Amino acid sequence: MTLDPGAGARGAPARPVRAHHSIGSFEPELGGALPEVTLAYETWGELSEAADNAVLLAHALTGDSHAAGGPSEGYRRGGWWHPMVGPGLPVDTQKYFVVCSNVLGGCSGSTGPASVEPGTGRPYGMRFPVITIRDMVRAQRRLLDDLGVRRLALVIGGSIGGQQTLEWAVEYPDFVEKAVPIAATGALGPQGLGMSEIGRRAIMADPDWQEGDYYGTGKRPDAGLAIARMAGMMTYQSAPGQWERFGRRPAGRPALHREFGGRFEIESYLHYQGRELTQRFDANSYLYLSRAMDLYDVAAGYESDQEAYSRIEAEVLFVGITSDWLFPPGEVRASAERAQRAGAEAGYAEIDTLSGHDAFLKDWTELTDTIKPFITGA
Amino acid sequence: MTLDPGAGARGAPARPVRAHHSIGSFEPELGGALPEVTLAYETWGELSEAADNAVLLAHALTGDSHAAGGPSEGYRRGGWWHPMVGPGLPVDTQKYFVVCSNVLGGCSGSTGPASVEPGTGRPYGMRFPVITIRDMVRAQRRLLDDLGVRRLALVIGGSIGGQQTLEWAVEYPDFVEKAVPIAATGALGPQGLGMSEIGRRAIMADPDWQEGDYYGTGKRPDAGLAIARMAGMMTYQSAPGQWERFGRRPAGRPALHREFGGRFEIESYLHYQGRELTQRFDANSYLYLSRAMDLYDVAAGYESDQEAYSRIEAEVLFVGITSDWLFPPGEVRASAERAQRAGAEAGYAEIDTLSGHDAFLKDWTELTDTIKPFITGA
Repeated sequence: MTLDPGAGARGAPARPVRAHHSIGSFEPELGGALPEVTLAYETWGELSEAADNAVLLAHALTGDSHAAGGPSEGYRRGGWWHPMVGPGLPVDTQKYFVVCSNVLGGCSGSTGPASVEPGTGRPYGMRFPVITIRDMVRAQRRLLDDLGVRRLALVIGGSIGGQQTLEWAVEYPDFVEKAVPIAATGALGPQGLGMSEIGRRAIMADPDWQEGDYYGTGKRPDAGLAIARMAGMMTYQSAPGQWERFGRRPAGRPALHREFGGRFEIESYLHYQGRELTQRFDANSYLYLSRAMDLYDVAAGYESDQEAYSRIEAEVLFVGITSDWLFPPGEVRASAERAQRAGAEAGYAEIDTLSGHDAFLKDWTELTDTIKPFITGA
Repeated sequence: MTLDPGAGARGAPARPVRAHHSIGSFEPELGGALPEVTLAYETWGELSEAADNAVLLAHALTGDSHAAGGPSEGYRRGGWWHPMVGPGLPVDTQKYFVVCSNVLGGCSGSTGPASVEPGTGRPYGMRFPVITIRDMVRAQRRLLDDLGVRRLALVIGGSIGGQQTLEWAVEYPDFVEKAVPIAATGALGPQGLGMSEIGRRAIMADPDWQEGDYYGTGKRPDAGLAIARMAGMMTYQSAPGQWERFGRRPAGRPALHREFGGRFEIESYLHYQGRELTQRFDANSYLYLSRAMDLYDVAAGYESDQEAYSRIEAEVLFVGITSDWLFPPGEVRASAERAQRAGAEAGYAEIDTLSGHDAFLKDWTELTDTIKPFITGA
């Protein structure tokens, strides 16, 4: 669990590198202690002599370090930002040393509630401390320091990746040159908080959750996690987009659950999305990461959000998505304006789409058009 | 279970009358059979000699026949449309004979899945047939016939009450003079369908649901029903309204569920709303009634919605709510326009509010201003 010699560090090969790295002990912002934290990460490209050409990609709630590249032995799916990261792409791996790490609290190689608690020999479960977006960022900073990175040319991500991006600019002003928080604001609104809590209640109400100690029992709260995912998916799409994609069409797929007066395509879709997540994600991680999303408030620890935003030295481009109802574009724009008012060099751009919140994971052309000029300075 | 002599019929007292009435056997539209159906209902005011001054109030998903009046032995809460129904109010009980019946499939006195199946001696559970909005309307028609009503001066209601209202105008054109469907369209969109299904999955995934046969077992799927209610509540409110009412304030109420990184007011509110419903509502009824909402399509059984709308002889006022995301105002307006195009005398009015879908149960002044002129013809 120590740093792979040379893995992703200066002089590393251009091929993606996947590794685990121990950052040692960690003290989460809200209390508790983690005696040993490992982060799983991948890198693409080479770190420059000045060690200032690094890009950090921050993944969303159920994402992982596999941001680019195709399926591999470790990842049955291709990278979540595959069309954005590579030679000649907006995040150009010929120019940048690109790093993506699974967040603290996650379940794709980094230390999280499914990890074994040192000393007890059993998984943390709900004894894992509450993790914040700032904790994720501080852990990432330690990884980047150990990789020899001296400055981030860019940090970028959507949703809770966007929250991390914004927090990077606030927490480490002199370390970040450009930041692109996508579909994220200084603080999630009550509608998003409510939808999050519906998902967590579904997990916690599942008897197989067993107060979080389901590891090794042969039972997992899959039913609850699937419902949480269904609720999440609703917030990732827009009503007009769903009219276009699903309408009121009957389902064409085999039933996963009891049929009741027929079944609409949107229901079948949600059932499949729910089941898919249970095959790759830990329910406790879902609880912790969704809670981190809820708790994030850029003003936390400062007098006000204005004081927080005034710390920013990076050039920031807030990107809103017209049909996003988790982080509505009006609220993203308002965050950009408040950052501007605090003196930050903050811009706002909007992606016009019916894709909803998830546009940052699918509307590649619009994303490229919006982001590439900001990154390249063209 | 037979008609109370004189209860609500011609010459009935002006005081509210609460009764149960058997409409005999019933054949639901989508199949199955109910050998014996009882409807619980209340009436206010007196039926005229011509028996044409009746008003039917159609309640929403978790509503009941108690539309007006204060708490009583049967109802711990006041009537759900209390400020709209009474002497001098928009639905004037000095002028009209007002009827409100608990819907078929409900759990507040009318026959539903919790009712005992004749012949078996045990509750129907999921052996209850799938019920449609049209079934509810046909059952109401039988009740009105038995009460001696010859014509409805008005039928009015919100949400699935609005769907019933619209269906009344289509199904019984020569029986309805005016119809006011509020916050309802010809067919629910996929976002609403998805939120409905999240609630049903939460109920069905609760082991205490026991495939619907929980009656008499000492266990009920309260946890699942509470989550369903939480999902429902999200669709009844608007994002800006929730910002105003809850923001990101911490909860001030005692915890009903495990605390996890603190608790926001919106979460506490949802928890309480969830628990409240479990104390007054049957989970299987929730499944059936939410399914009826989903399945409603004004075009069902016709060549098109145009053919359905062309049947309407009543004067119809569709009422949209600006911040409604269950039945978005644009879709309500589109339903009105399609009805107009089909030749119906259909108008559209909009209530401008942050209250969301639930505005029809709280924005009394705006409702009165919108509806009263249409009802009185002023």
